Amino acid sequence: MNFPSKLIQEAVEQFAKLPGVGRKTALRLVLNLLQMDKEEVNRFGQAFIDLRNHINYCSNCHNISDLEVCEICANPNRDEGLLCVVEDIRDVMAIENTHQFKGKYHVLGGIISPMDGIGPSDLNIVSLEEKVQSGIVKEVIMALSTTMEGDTTNFYIFKKFKDYNVKLSVIARGVSVGDELEYADEVTLGRSILNRTPYENSLIQ
Amino acid sequence: MNFPSKLIQEAVEQFAKLPGVGRKTALRLVLNLLQMDKEEVNRFGQAFIDLRNHINYCSNCHNISDLEVCEICANPNRDEGLLCVVEDIRDVMAIENTHQFKGKYHVLGGIISPMDGIGPSDLNIVSLEEKVQSGIVKEVIMALSTTMEGDTTNFYIFKKFKDYNVKLSVIARGVSVGDELEYADEVTLGRSILNRTPYENSLIQ
Repeated sequence: MNFPSKLIQEAVEQFAKLPGVGRKTALRLVLNLLQMDKEEVNRFGQAFIDLRNHINYCSNCHNISDLEVCEICANPNRDEGLLCVVEDIRDVMAIENTHQFKGKYHVLGGIISPMDGIGPSDLNIVSLEEKVQSGIVKEVIMALSTTMEGDTTNFYIFKKFKDYNVKLSVIARGVSVGDELEYADEVTLGRSILNRTPYENSLIQ
Repeated sequence: MNFPSKLIQEAVEQFAKLPGVGRKTALRLVLNLLQMDKEEVNRFGQAFIDLRNHINYCSNCHNISDLEVCEICANPNRDEGLLCVVEDIRDVMAIENTHQFKGKYHVLGGIISPMDGIGPSDLNIVSLEEKVQSGIVKEVIMALSTTMEGDTTNFYIFKKFKDYNVKLSVIARGVSVGDELEYADEVTLGRSILNRTPYENSLIQ
């Protein structure tokens, strides 16, 4: 694409850096921005600059937070003995939305993925080990994506922590609530039979 | 969605203002920005601010341009007598890509769309009329989208210009090159029969 303006070209190229945004979509978004007020566009651009320059991570769980220690970590009503290990902030938000978890979180900041060049040393595993070593944590719940990379990370952490006096668990994998059995894939259905739960635990609250 | 950080929330809300971007997609894009270098994100945000504050339109054709008069309007080899009326910069770029048009453009900046509150006075129609009045333009080619709004705009302009000594035409509507006849919709196919062209004009060059 040949653009008649360097400003347009630069803006399109910046948008096209984002995952899933091609140059045609980028141009559509840029033309949309041009129809907004100047103040609104200034706020738009400034939001990302501010975010990147002033972002702060909780010193305890490594989740994104405006405070030195995030609200969840600072909450004395949450069980310190129960530690849920997740990949990123989206998973914390998803689990918080269920209102089913009253423990604390530990954000890894990714999962082991050799294809993307991400190894254990790129993740927040050292601080996780310190928490487990301290003896306060009674159970580590691994809540990672049920993908090859998630399984690899689970395996790595279980191997590392198996000699510590801590219970290690993984979130249940099975047929989604509301799903029809015939459409469930065979691995999921097979696991849901192997890891069947007592009836009284299966009721949706 | 409850965000643990105001910076994240602001960035997500800014992205979600864009058409076709929901809050989940916005969060995915924001987390992607967080993994980029600071300089890269500064450049990202600044590109949109610069674009909106320093954008310039060609004083002749109203297309986006870094120059006072755009390259196409300033090119003496292009036929001033042939004026192609389009909606926005994307259409100019699309037609330029075909290398089939050697005249000049006039960018309306939109099409008449009462549903979106866009009337003739919001478009660059006054300056189009001045060009037609001046007598330099011999033919006005309407190259708008083949939608209800495009047809309305065509109708409005033809009615306005019918008493001027200028030829008025519309880009051909018919079956796309490479399309199979059975899949063409009936309106398009009907038009392509009514507006059939001599065989020697139909060869793809």
